[in-house]
Amino acid sequence: MEVKEMLFMNKGDGENSYVKTSGYTQKVAAVTQPVVYRAAQSLFTGRNSCSYQVLNVADLGCSSGPNTFTVMSTVIESTRDKCTELNWQMPEIQFYLNDLVGNDFNTLFKGLSVIQDKYKNVSCFAMGAPGSFHGRLFPQNSMHLIHSSYGVQWLSKVPKMTSEGGLSPPNKGKIYISKTSPPAVWKAYLSQFQEDFLSFLRCRSPELVPDGRMVLIIHGRKSADPTTRESCYTWEVLADAISYQVSQGLIDEEKLNSFNVPYYIPSQEEVRDLVNKEGSFLTEFVDTIEVELEGIWTGPENGAKNLRSFTEPMISHQFGEEVMDKLYDKVKDILVEDCKQEKQSTRGVSIVLELKKKESHLS
Amino acid sequence: MEVKEMLFMNKGDGENSYVKTSGYTQKVAAVTQPVVYRAAQSLFTGRNSCSYQVLNVADLGCSSGPNTFTVMSTVIESTRDKCTELNWQMPEIQFYLNDLVGNDFNTLFKGLSVIQDKYKNVSCFAMGAPGSFHGRLFPQNSMHLIHSSYGVQWLSKVPKMTSEGGLSPPNKGKIYISKTSPPAVWKAYLSQFQEDFLSFLRCRSPELVPDGRMVLIIHGRKSADPTTRESCYTWEVLADAISYQVSQGLIDEEKLNSFNVPYYIPSQEEVRDLVNKEGSFLTEFVDTIEVELEGIWTGPENGAKNLRSFTEPMISHQFGEEVMDKLYDKVKDILVEDCKQEKQSTRGVSIVLELKKKESHLS
Repeated sequence: MEVKEMLFMNKGDGENSYVKTSGYTQKVAAVTQPVVYRAAQSLFTGRNSCSYQVLNVADLGCSSGPNTFTVMSTVIESTRDKCTELNWQMPEIQFYLNDLVGNDFNTLFKGLSVIQDKYKNVSCFAMGAPGSFHGRLFPQNSMHLIHSSYGVQWLSKVPKMTSEGGLSPPNKGKIYISKTSPPAVWKAYLSQFQEDFLSFLRCRSPELVPDGRMVLIIHGRKSADPTTRESCYTWEVLADAISYQVSQGLIDEEKLNSFNVPYYIPSQEEVRDLVNKEGSFLTEFVDTIEVELEGIWTGPENGAKNLRSFTEPMISHQFGEEVMDKLYDKVKDILVEDCKQEKQSTRGVSIVLELKKKESHLS
Repeated sequence: MEVKEMLFMNKGDGENSYVKTSGYTQKVAAVTQPVVYRAAQSLFTGRNSCSYQVLNVADLGCSSGPNTFTVMSTVIESTRDKCTELNWQMPEIQFYLNDLVGNDFNTLFKGLSVIQDKYKNVSCFAMGAPGSFHGRLFPQNSMHLIHSSYGVQWLSKVPKMTSEGGLSPPNKGKIYISKTSPPAVWKAYLSQFQEDFLSFLRCRSPELVPDGRMVLIIHGRKSADPTTRESCYTWEVLADAISYQVSQGLIDEEKLNSFNVPYYIPSQEEVRDLVNKEGSFLTEFVDTIEVELEGIWTGPENGAKNLRSFTEPMISHQFGEEVMDKLYDKVKDILVEDCKQEKQSTRGVSIVLELKKKESHLS
């Protein structure tokens, strides 16, 4: 089974669903909306600006809500404000909501009534666009604005890594880059991220109109070192919880040692290098921001639910559905303990990037 | 609850699902593909034809498959053939698959791999477009070809009817126009169809580019009389099965008398009159065709399953889920009996219509 077939957020709107537990990415969305607002307005001020008939806007990795509705609201209001200011007619807006085929589009579509009810006088249309953003999603020259929040740190596949000498497992007892991982593990992760992010940019480039904008919000890190608690905490907790199930005989050790998450937390520098290397975008804005986790989850139980909502489909695929409740109970226990010892992660780091498609791409 | 919230085909791919039992509409699709093929090609020969970069194609009321994949295949192959003939570059094709929000888009999207696997060298993209085709679905001037099969005979609401004198129920014991229905019932149905089909055409008109095409396949009737067995058979059988449950005390008679289906089976003349009245389309082609039902369903059991797949969500909403198995068992019994007496309907009638958007609409 490929990554794209097992990678989706928990479905529906039950207590472990992504819809109900996505507090952190909601807070990130709230903090980053000014960038989206400004990017939408800048479409009306460039050399290629005109009184658009239709504005095409995509949200990549939109999941099943509600963050994508926040983005839709921002784009609608930004456009409305700008058109009022310029005394132009408001264009029709067509939103393309993208995620993998396994995403719960039925729940997403039911949620759209929020937008329809809120903006009754705006002509806007919402489409679901199923597919992987590691490949082409839209016709050439069709998009004005592309947004993706907490999407592009997901890799198209688990990095290939081999252990030195080939004796012990290359990333024994861990599921992501860790203090105890040999350098080959980081190298493999970085290499896969470079390949994926370059191909992501190369796919988006023909899809955007000249002067079109792309706003990317990426789970990132501040330190050059990829093994600090800041970036690895989630995966360390999960690895510890899995290790505990191994010690209880509920999970086969071999399954843990052969598993790594298809996820890489880059630094701003790593991201900028790749944008420059690809060459068809200008960086209009870049920043690394920190969002306090305090107040988002009232206690470790909700932290565990959030972690479950975006990791369970992938984790249960590897380790089996029957062990999930026990595994995430252990996650909760670890979070409770870390909380007492004030060892838990208190801030989330995001790289915020606004790119502009160059007029013509002379490579 | 509005019609658009309870109207969808049975979900998933189980034995009563629409995906597994849509043999009749599959046969209709097979028979009508030459019209779709020709309509797609005609886009390349009109006054406004050019070497398209992108062709936008919509299928309205697409359900969750597989008929919509047949339409996609036809459009791709027709375009490829025409471009080969003209020595033009093949455009990218963007498909918009529309149905009501309650439709099972998750199943639809999973089925799309059939098309991706079949046309690896064609650049085509598929979007889900949730919403009612009784309202606007797409931006102005955005569609080149719109297709809808067995969609537009569904009404936006149940026709309002009052009984003469207001004493007995206006359509007692029936759920559609019947031999025993008073004239007011037909009048109410026709009036609702006129309102809905006119608004359908008025919504599509701005969405289509000039010279854009629309292919509509509508469940229709040949006779001027709307009460012949030819058009009413399905609803008569269902009404009889419901009446039987009433006689058994399983369904409240009041519930039957207050229910009518939001569905109207028009004649070709009724449809043409409305196209002319709306005024922004030229009729390029119109025909009324008959499709033999023989060989589609091997026996009444499959006939009952098909009927269940497209009526159950609506019927269970009115009469309750708990009585559904018994109700459709009775449907099967009636079909078996009719089969023995050769009373069953042996042909389905469809109106096939190809419309061309006029260059400018001077009303």
